[in-house]
Amino acid sequence: MAKAPKYIYHFGSGKSDGDASMKALLGGKGANLGEMARRGFNVPPGFTITTEVCTYYYANKKSYPKGLLEKDIKDAVAKLEKQQKKKFGDARNPLLVSVRSGARDSMPGMMDTILNLGLNDTTVEGLKAKTQNGRFAYDSYRRFVQMYGDVVMGVQKRHENEHEPFDAVMDELKHAKGYTEDTQFTEADLKELIVAFRKLIKERTGKAFPNDPYEQLKGAVGAVFGSWMNERANIYRDKYNIPHEWGTAVNVQAMVFGNMGDTSGTGVAFTRNPANGANEFYGEYLANAQGEDVVAGVRTPLKITDMATDQVFKGIFQQLLKVRAKLEKEFGDVQDFEFTIEEQTLYMLQTRNGKRTAQAYVKIAHDMVKQKLMTPEHAVKSGDPQALDQLLAPIFDTSDEKAAEQDSYLTTGLPAGPGAASGTIAFTAAKAEALAAAGQKAVLCRVETSPEDLKGMIAAEGILTARGGVSSHAALVARQMGKVCVAGAGDLSVDYEAGTLTCNGRTLREGEFIAINGTTGKVYGRKVKTSDSELKQVLIGKTMKPGDSSLFQAYDFVMKLADKYRTLGLRTNADQPDQAHNAIAFGAEGIGLCRTEHMFFDGDRIDSVREMILFAEDYAKYRNEVADAKDDAQKQASLKGQYADAIDHFTSALGKLLPMQQKDFEGLFAAMDGRPVTIRFLDPPLHEFLPQSKDQKDDLAKKLGVSYERIEALGHSLHEFNPMLGHRGCRLGLVYPEITEMQSRAVFKAAISVAKKTGKKVVPEIMIPLVGYQAELAQQLEIVHRVAAEEQAAAKTKMVYLVGTMIEIPRAAVTAAEIAKDAQFFSFGTNDLTQTTLGMSRDDSGKFLPHYQKVGIVKANPFATLDQAGVGKLMEMAIAGGKQTRPEIKLGICGEHGGDPQTIEYCHKIGLSYVSCSPFRVPVARLAAAQAALKHGGKPAKAGKAKVKSAKPKAKAGKAKAGKAKAKAAGARG
Amino acid sequence: MAKAPKYIYHFGSGKSDGDASMKALLGGKGANLGEMARRGFNVPPGFTITTEVCTYYYANKKSYPKGLLEKDIKDAVAKLEKQQKKKFGDARNPLLVSVRSGARDSMPGMMDTILNLGLNDTTVEGLKAKTQNGRFAYDSYRRFVQMYGDVVMGVQKRHENEHEPFDAVMDELKHAKGYTEDTQFTEADLKELIVAFRKLIKERTGKAFPNDPYEQLKGAVGAVFGSWMNERANIYRDKYNIPHEWGTAVNVQAMVFGNMGDTSGTGVAFTRNPANGANEFYGEYLANAQGEDVVAGVRTPLKITDMATDQVFKGIFQQLLKVRAKLEKEFGDVQDFEFTIEEQTLYMLQTRNGKRTAQAYVKIAHDMVKQKLMTPEHAVKSGDPQALDQLLAPIFDTSDEKAAEQDSYLTTGLPAGPGAASGTIAFTAAKAEALAAAGQKAVLCRVETSPEDLKGMIAAEGILTARGGVSSHAALVARQMGKVCVAGAGDLSVDYEAGTLTCNGRTLREGEFIAINGTTGKVYGRKVKTSDSELKQVLIGKTMKPGDSSLFQAYDFVMKLADKYRTLGLRTNADQPDQAHNAIAFGAEGIGLCRTEHMFFDGDRIDSVREMILFAEDYAKYRNEVADAKDDAQKQASLKGQYADAIDHFTSALGKLLPMQQKDFEGLFAAMDGRPVTIRFLDPPLHEFLPQSKDQKDDLAKKLGVSYERIEALGHSLHEFNPMLGHRGCRLGLVYPEITEMQSRAVFKAAISVAKKTGKKVVPEIMIPLVGYQAELAQQLEIVHRVAAEEQAAAKTKMVYLVGTMIEIPRAAVTAAEIAKDAQFFSFGTNDLTQTTLGMSRDDSGKFLPHYQKVGIVKANPFATLDQAGVGKLMEMAIAGGKQTRPEIKLGICGEHGGDPQTIEYCHKIGLSYVSCSPFRVPVARLAAAQAALKHGGKPAKAGKAKVKSAKPKAKAGKAKAGKAKAKAAGARG
Repeated sequence: MAKAPKYIYHFGSGKSDGDASMKALLGGKGANLGEMARRGFNVPPGFTITTEVCTYYYANKKSYPKGLLEKDIKDAVAKLEKQQKKKFGDARNPLLVSVRSGARDSMPGMMDTILNLGLNDTTVEGLKAKTQNGRFAYDSYRRFVQMYGDVVMGVQKRHENEHEPFDAVMDELKHAKGYTEDTQFTEADLKELIVAFRKLIKERTGKAFPNDPYEQLKGAVGAVFGSWMNERANIYRDKYNIPHEWGTAVNVQAMVFGNMGDTSGTGVAFTRNPANGANEFYGEYLANAQGEDVVAGVRTPLKITDMATDQVFKGIFQQLLKVRAKLEKEFGDVQDFEFTIEEQTLYMLQTRNGKRTAQAYVKIAHDMVKQKLMTPEHAVKSGDPQALDQLLAPIFDTSDEKAAEQDSYLTTGLPAGPGAASGTIAFTAAKAEALAAAGQKAVLCRVETSPEDLKGMIAAEGILTARGGVSSHAALVARQMGKVCVAGAGDLSVDYEAGTLTCNGRTLREGEFIAINGTTGKVYGRKVKTSDSELKQVLIGKTMKPGDSSLFQAYDFVMKLADKYRTLGLRTNADQPDQAHNAIAFGAEGIGLCRTEHMFFDGDRIDSVREMILFAEDYAKYRNEVADAKDDAQKQASLKGQYADAIDHFTSALGKLLPMQQKDFEGLFAAMDGRPVTIRFLDPPLHEFLPQSKDQKDDLAKKLGVSYERIEALGHSLHEFNPMLGHRGCRLGLVYPEITEMQSRAVFKAAISVAKKTGKKVVPEIMIPLVGYQAELAQQLEIVHRVAAEEQAAAKTKMVYLVGTMIEIPRAAVTAAEIAKDAQFFSFGTNDLTQTTLGMSRDDSGKFLPHYQKVGIVKANPFATLDQAGVGKLMEMAIAGGKQTRPEIKLGICGEHGGDPQTIEYCHKIGLSYVSCSPFRVPVARLAAAQAALKHGGKPAKAGKAKVKSAKPKAKAGKAKAGKAKAKAAGARG
Repeated sequence: MAKAPKYIYHFGSGKSDGDASMKALLGGKGANLGEMARRGFNVPPGFTITTEVCTYYYANKKSYPKGLLEKDIKDAVAKLEKQQKKKFGDARNPLLVSVRSGARDSMPGMMDTILNLGLNDTTVEGLKAKTQNGRFAYDSYRRFVQMYGDVVMGVQKRHENEHEPFDAVMDELKHAKGYTEDTQFTEADLKELIVAFRKLIKERTGKAFPNDPYEQLKGAVGAVFGSWMNERANIYRDKYNIPHEWGTAVNVQAMVFGNMGDTSGTGVAFTRNPANGANEFYGEYLANAQGEDVVAGVRTPLKITDMATDQVFKGIFQQLLKVRAKLEKEFGDVQDFEFTIEEQTLYMLQTRNGKRTAQAYVKIAHDMVKQKLMTPEHAVKSGDPQALDQLLAPIFDTSDEKAAEQDSYLTTGLPAGPGAASGTIAFTAAKAEALAAAGQKAVLCRVETSPEDLKGMIAAEGILTARGGVSSHAALVARQMGKVCVAGAGDLSVDYEAGTLTCNGRTLREGEFIAINGTTGKVYGRKVKTSDSELKQVLIGKTMKPGDSSLFQAYDFVMKLADKYRTLGLRTNADQPDQAHNAIAFGAEGIGLCRTEHMFFDGDRIDSVREMILFAEDYAKYRNEVADAKDDAQKQASLKGQYADAIDHFTSALGKLLPMQQKDFEGLFAAMDGRPVTIRFLDPPLHEFLPQSKDQKDDLAKKLGVSYERIEALGHSLHEFNPMLGHRGCRLGLVYPEITEMQSRAVFKAAISVAKKTGKKVVPEIMIPLVGYQAELAQQLEIVHRVAAEEQAAAKTKMVYLVGTMIEIPRAAVTAAEIAKDAQFFSFGTNDLTQTTLGMSRDDSGKFLPHYQKVGIVKANPFATLDQAGVGKLMEMAIAGGKQTRPEIKLGICGEHGGDPQTIEYCHKIGLSYVSCSPFRVPVARLAAAQAALKHGGKPAKAGKAKVKSAKPKAKAGKAKAGKAKAKAAGARG
């Protein structure tokens, strides 16, 4: 018989069943409590109910494994009673416990904590006797009933305008007694409140507040498990892609009291600054308080460093300094920990790796690796690639911020999330969401934030709070999401009812502008202009030197560390030399997608493009009719006359475009300095190039000497019902092979000329778009190879080039083995592949995709994160097919997914050679690719470094050749 | 060592190397010559060069297998010399041969025949001596030089307006001599012509006409192989999907002369009438003529039956009657044969299964099976399913044709292709093509047609010729393509130069109307109205009784024969009772696709549909906000007020639609009389239902009491960039579940009511469209199952129903195993699946698809014939996935491909349960499915007969249920 799983793990008193490696089973909190106890930190003993119980709970209609409630928990409590020499429910020496949730990763939004569990009308007297403090005992009891009534029994506001029901009871009594502060409540008042609370609970729920401590415990455990599936927790998991299946653990721990008097206290601290990464002790404490008081932001706590000079706690501070050092050493990362001081004894209640901003991440990784406190692997693994975007987010323009300081300065708060945010004031989460939905930037301004504000915080550009310290909810969420945040700006007075924010003599209303600097904590009462981030200024703007920026040094250190592990090649999507330069600065090793049509819009050349388009159809008719006329010279001459206009314009337009494209390619090749450049031939439908307004059309008609009606008619003739599935991609090059020829010639002329000028090898990779049939590619490549041979012969030189195709429609994926006969590389165009595989137009999906995410049909937006089960399956088929025909085939991705960390991990797993993304996403991709390699193991060689063999026309006559032979044979007979 | 393949097969003199079973190797002509010789028909001896030589020729740069020319052919000629006791090139007793092409299937457009090969200045004298007929000998020589110069050496018109060059030379001499007929040429004239012809050849080609018979033979063989790849042959193969790889054989046969004088002759005959299938001897002959003269239509030949009373040939006629009977007996099908009479001796030159019209096909199959001359298998196999469409093509309206006979009768020709065609006169193939391209119906009117007119004949509605008999090119092509055709209407005078057609005192010009009755041969000088075909009148119109129509009896016999072999189920796409009735009449066993939205346009109901659409979005907002408000009754009440208008209109519109849809479904269920009915829920994007014109919009605004601007705004808001990939299919039902609920309710109410009324079982199969994700289907089916349960409970009854989905986007195919968890059946929506898999919008493909077909990228239009390599691959994946999860899953196809014979064969092969096509395609599908079963073997069970198990909501909580639990948990906490 299989052994029953162990559902309960003990910790404390220097011994533990679990340790830090067991986060999946015990949750982060439980595992680390075990680890701390093992390593000699003073942890109040307790036990963890495993995440497997949570999984069981949801799989079995919210019931528990057999015996858990009846026996296992009771045994665990008994063990705790023995350790603490107290008894659960005992009238004289009662054991009190806290109950906390603890998932694998810390997760805001879930039920956090219930304190003082075990109190009832009997045990409260025991506590009073033991502490000789009736007010303390009854206040603890009052807090417990309130917390339990709210969280476990669900006594909450029934609509937005209602007061918190327990608060209302307290306010009533305060008013009746003429008190102004909670601290004025006497022991008798508190007893009265407790009666009133219990009555409220009974009225609202129909159930009595449970006196039996085991009943209380059972309820609390159920509430923790229940909170795993609440809306806020679900939103959070969806945002961070945490599986719903993980579940949470429950930690039951002997109470220690930070509110037992003036020699008690509680605090939250980071071993380093989590906002900017500075190596400084960072945190807050409150004397005579329970932990929740710090986090809730109700009382503004003192800085942890102030404790050094606090007469009561300076000894404790010395202990904390030792704890700080020991934590970093033992856990190998910055720690975010909670402690309680009960009558001058320091207890550790929790530790975890500190959530940090991107800026702090690179700084801490750099410093701790150099200090040998952190392993290089952990430094790479622990970063959130997505968050690196923050380093590129704009900061305030120096001169405009100076001006704002003169004319609109409001106050300075805690710099809790670095960066700059200007936006419209929103006093509620709902308002922030509404503004964001309307495309406006919002700054959420609250007295304090709570888990209920989560959606609004996600929607806002920045967060400003009047109360709460660096450990407050606002600061915590800001750090985690990389939001710009200024917390605890105490001068600020926010009046929700009046809808005003007052500070420094100014009153601002909802809808007016405000600006916050999350790096310095300054707040301004107007919009402030922004400029490039520090990192951009070093890398691109070159307005700062690397030596001037410690942020750059840390960033660069981490990126180079990542490169050591990364095996996936990194390319960028760029069409212009300056983009190419940027991308190289960010670490790109080549261009994975140059969209040639972007060049078509530049300056005057759009006129030539339009000229080409206007006469393309007639020219093609001419070409086909000439071919049909075979060797009838008379007929051909007459056709030449008939189509003179079209021939003239079309060839002249192509003639003008050739040197322009050549120049563009020369610029790119020079900028890429020998790195590979993938050039995609003309892709969008031709109507995208046409003039839209009457004036533009008039203008074009005049320039080309044709009638306005003709321009109009062209627009109608090129109109498409579903342009995404229309005449575009290689379908253009097939119907108008002259365009493919022109583009080929521009590429080869440019490559030869740059190679000659620079003496470096230039390796163009020509990519034919939207291929679905092997014959499409073969017929297009016939032109490419012919032009390549012509240009090499003309320049008396040899060059290396590759030819390949996008895989962006399902048919290409399905017939990849055929297509690989001609393609030396595949590049997955996952934008279009997603649209066709899902039958979903990105531009039109707004009507249903948000609903799909809401009801769980899709987890992530498939246009941002690759749909692995659908699109990925086709990619895997294409890879298998491609490799079957051509084992050395190069494989890349150039859709927008190429910059998405989850997708990058997938690309690594399925064996792509490289990913290509927009220049500013390159750092994200760099870190994500390194993490993928660490997680799944590396691959032998990078594409960027792979040896290149030039494309060669096949020796064997392809289909196209047979076609030619056919035409010739027909000619001989016809 | 492998034995060298045998490249040459002899036949004749009662012995043959080959036989009728060897068509792949010897071509149809060669194989049947072998067979005829074996069976004692009098065949001039000869030999066949195999199709493998043709394959070799194209695979090896147009060269021949080693030794073929040098030895094998010479050996074969030597054997022939021995049999015939003549010598190739001999001055006194020269062997002359014909050279003919012969592919597996007879193929117009390829080089046909060269006669009299072996003649030169020397051997012609031998022929003269032997036949004592100088004029005959030199005329034979003249013909040979002309034919050889044209076909082998390529001396042809250089442009359209040039005269045939050899004809020009002859005309010149005729003119100079003052002759009016070719027959007036003397031996001396012919000698002069031969010199002039040889001079022309030399001038035009730079090469001399070869004197050496082996050189002549080599050239002729090369010309046959070359003609395999000429344009017309390619067009023909593409139309009939004949692989280019098959190749042609070459037949070299000892000459017999039909033109040796008045006791000689030649003819072409069918053992039965190939136009209408009548059991009558049918054909033509010409005295003193070579075979080409009959086919070319230059001299109008005599009816074969006239031979019975021909004093010279009446003995031969008796022999021919025996041949006719023997051919049918030996070959088991109607034969189309050629014969030559050389001085009263009958020789058989060729036989093959006769091409026939659809009408003839069913008649012949019926008659010959009954006469035990044909096997039932052959009767089924030998029909062209596609051609059955001809039986449904309209015929002339009786009364209007009677009127036309009074006011516009022109003439009566040979009824060569049954049916009725009215259209614009086109005198050239190019004109007919141009008219067809412009969407106009054309009747191609020619003196005679030639292979060069093929494209125009395909484009035209009907063909009318002034010259040529039932074996003429026009008649042959018309039979094969099912074109309406009247041939050899000798009263007709067509003047190409003047662009006129004159007959019966009237002159018509190009562009005017003409009408031809291919069943009677009558021609009218105006449009004539059409009415239903005879078959339709029996099956659908019921204006004729089955007993009145022998055509119906034959058709019915063949269809029932087909059903014996068919294993694939047959359904139809129908939305209305009358369509359903028709489909059943044609043999449908169920409805495979009922598009519910078609019902939405009927009568007033479009107003209700528009009302529903106009308020849907607001209603959805209301629903979502109420859900968010959870148990806040006050908030909910306020929302109800705020959205009162939307709630009112939306629910009222649905309320109006429910009974309408229910009535529609009742009609369908009743019509289908217990057969399964697959109902697809709302599919098209909502904007398709909106009014377009200002008046319509105004009208709607007034009816609904909203502003015009609001209607306009809705149009804008619903506009999509790529509607094909937009908010449609189940995406509608998910965002607006109320619509799915209404449709479900209508289905179940209707099913229950019809079952009650008729006492028969009604089995609705509910089909959710455009599913890409399993969760989409699961969430929609949750509604369906709930409503089913409610309606069954309300009616206190139990019923059987199935649920399933369309597989019409690639993601569904790829994730079919997941989707099959909820789907009891898959129906492949190959229209959309083709569009998404190919990334090709059907509506927009006109700009490039014709080009793709021309250059060979696609063989067939992928929207007509399924793309097996691409779309098919995904279907096979879906089938594998579906069966993996649910081995008994039902599989069908309901795209337009379901009526395409090639696709049907494929569907049979990959194991579908049924195909569904439009009602009028059902006969086509019926025959095609039977042929597929005969070709590939049957399958155990038909879908139509499979046992049905009702859909049941899954016992296990699906994703949707978990989602509900989630929402509830959140509610408890929120």
